Amino acid sequence: MSAITNTQILVRELPRGELTEGHFEVAKAPLPELEDGEVLVRHILLSLDAANRAWMQGPTYRDAVVAGQIMAGYGLGEVVESRSDRRAPGDIVAAELGWQEYAAVSARTTVKLPKDYRPLSHFHSVLGIAGRTAYHGLIWIGEPKEGDTVVVSAAAGSVGQYVGQIAKLKGCRVVGIAGGPKKCGFLVDELGFDAAIDYKGEHVRKRLAELAPDGIDIYFDNVGGDILEAALFNMAQFGRVVCCGAISQYDTTEMTSPRGIPGVIVFKRLKMQGFIVLDFADREPEASRDLAAWAQAGKLKVVEDVVEGVERAPAGLIGILNGDNIGKRMVRVGDDPA
Amino acid sequence: MSAITNTQILVRELPRGELTEGHFEVAKAPLPELEDGEVLVRHILLSLDAANRAWMQGPTYRDAVVAGQIMAGYGLGEVVESRSDRRAPGDIVAAELGWQEYAAVSARTTVKLPKDYRPLSHFHSVLGIAGRTAYHGLIWIGEPKEGDTVVVSAAAGSVGQYVGQIAKLKGCRVVGIAGGPKKCGFLVDELGFDAAIDYKGEHVRKRLAELAPDGIDIYFDNVGGDILEAALFNMAQFGRVVCCGAISQYDTTEMTSPRGIPGVIVFKRLKMQGFIVLDFADREPEASRDLAAWAQAGKLKVVEDVVEGVERAPAGLIGILNGDNIGKRMVRVGDDPA
Repeated sequence: MSAITNTQILVRELPRGELTEGHFEVAKAPLPELEDGEVLVRHILLSLDAANRAWMQGPTYRDAVVAGQIMAGYGLGEVVESRSDRRAPGDIVAAELGWQEYAAVSARTTVKLPKDYRPLSHFHSVLGIAGRTAYHGLIWIGEPKEGDTVVVSAAAGSVGQYVGQIAKLKGCRVVGIAGGPKKCGFLVDELGFDAAIDYKGEHVRKRLAELAPDGIDIYFDNVGGDILEAALFNMAQFGRVVCCGAISQYDTTEMTSPRGIPGVIVFKRLKMQGFIVLDFADREPEASRDLAAWAQAGKLKVVEDVVEGVERAPAGLIGILNGDNIGKRMVRVGDDPA
Repeated sequence: MSAITNTQILVRELPRGELTEGHFEVAKAPLPELEDGEVLVRHILLSLDAANRAWMQGPTYRDAVVAGQIMAGYGLGEVVESRSDRRAPGDIVAAELGWQEYAAVSARTTVKLPKDYRPLSHFHSVLGIAGRTAYHGLIWIGEPKEGDTVVVSAAAGSVGQYVGQIAKLKGCRVVGIAGGPKKCGFLVDELGFDAAIDYKGEHVRKRLAELAPDGIDIYFDNVGGDILEAALFNMAQFGRVVCCGAISQYDTTEMTSPRGIPGVIVFKRLKMQGFIVLDFADREPEASRDLAAWAQAGKLKVVEDVVEGVERAPAGLIGILNGDNIGKRMVRVGDDPA
């Protein structure tokens, strides 16, 4: 295997404002040598997430991304060499593989996936971080009840589309917020949302007041900023704000904050709670069981947006920050196993 | 009783900025005629609360206060006349009596208090809204565990002093934030707090980092604004922010909002939750039992700040907004029953 080179995307420089392709560079490296306990993984599908950009702003729930190193990212692939009893060649695993074609990672950090399940892309979408983030945030923090009005932002994105669909399965009225008439049409026509608001063309706060006249019971926030503020002022008493992400705040050094905090939280007795999917590790079996069952029964539509080739990962991430994806975006880095 | 006049404090004009005594006026009225179902209450002790000022900003969890009418407030007094089977002359009741010496209120809206308990002032302090607000917010929203670091703002105020003392009873480390060395000394020397920060003379964010090096587990927020922001950036992962009030935001038309929301909520997986004491009606028996037991056993020190005469209520409220009270402030409107 010594003839194989490993294409890698490095962080050339950390962005101070808007992220551009110039912040990355392509490098070629030889395959890494394994140490005891490690496996060599041939990367098949790399997940692209808005959170990748947040990691470039400094330490969050994980270490910050550093200039000069391989860009961080979750991926799934095939074990091609092992120096661990835990994993064998041929195993399909998910792990933090980074933006590269081959990764040497500690076998302990890998999650073994069912070998024969296809398409593998589902492990990044409905069964992956996107679907599980939607599930855990909505169910455990949002606590949806039949008849609740649920609003979700970045609704056509990887997490948002599952939030809305799961809320519909729970008997809620669902309003999605997305950018542009194409995405809004997709939400209502394809995913069965009750209504959609185009934040690029409509006055979000006024439209929320019209579409949720009795107030929003659950607002699932993927964006922060002005849309969060518009939602806060339209919450019902005892409403829940599920703080999942703040995509409007990642690609900038100038953060904004919604006005009215903490006043509106007290007056309306709101709960705002942040989470990441890893917080619900003990509830994964339930999430996986429900999500797989709903997907197999066709109750959850799975919409994916696959970019070809690791070299296109930077453009793919920038696209997410600009809101050009519909559904979970990922990068096909290598072929499925034969 | 026709010779008795009822001294009342009216809202002359709603404040746009800082509240002054000029926003109120004193009036004399005859005693009101009772309608069926009403009782006439001789007001004994009026509770003064920062929330009174918030009611002048517009509708909150209750109707807004209106210019030209009697200023709203909770009080306790003695029933002197009754047109209801529910209450009899001589009963001691708590109700929304307003800033006046006599009030005609629906008997349904009154809470009957134990007739022989003294001092009556305890029903406004440790057994009243102050003590119960501290109890419910800390216990049910803050969820204190032994060893937690608890920070409370307006710590020498009516609610804050019980928050800190109850947290100590639960085995927590307690840091109070208050204005001036006198209050800070009171917290540590009299109430047994572990430390205090003088927000008028110290850099709150830096001092919190020093005093809570592993992060704040529970921040009980009575003030909002910059101090809330300083606390947010010093929270521990999975910390709880109990949103009780926003005194820094009431006496102004220019609201500020802490930066970093929702980013810090997501990264640290915080919960911010608002409440008012009425939300926990079903848990009142537990609260009353614990608070009375602690007060009787001397485990909770009860510090009160009583102003004499209903005419002094405006100055008393303005004083709370300027932070001049130590402990629960109330107004003695009339004598205790003989």
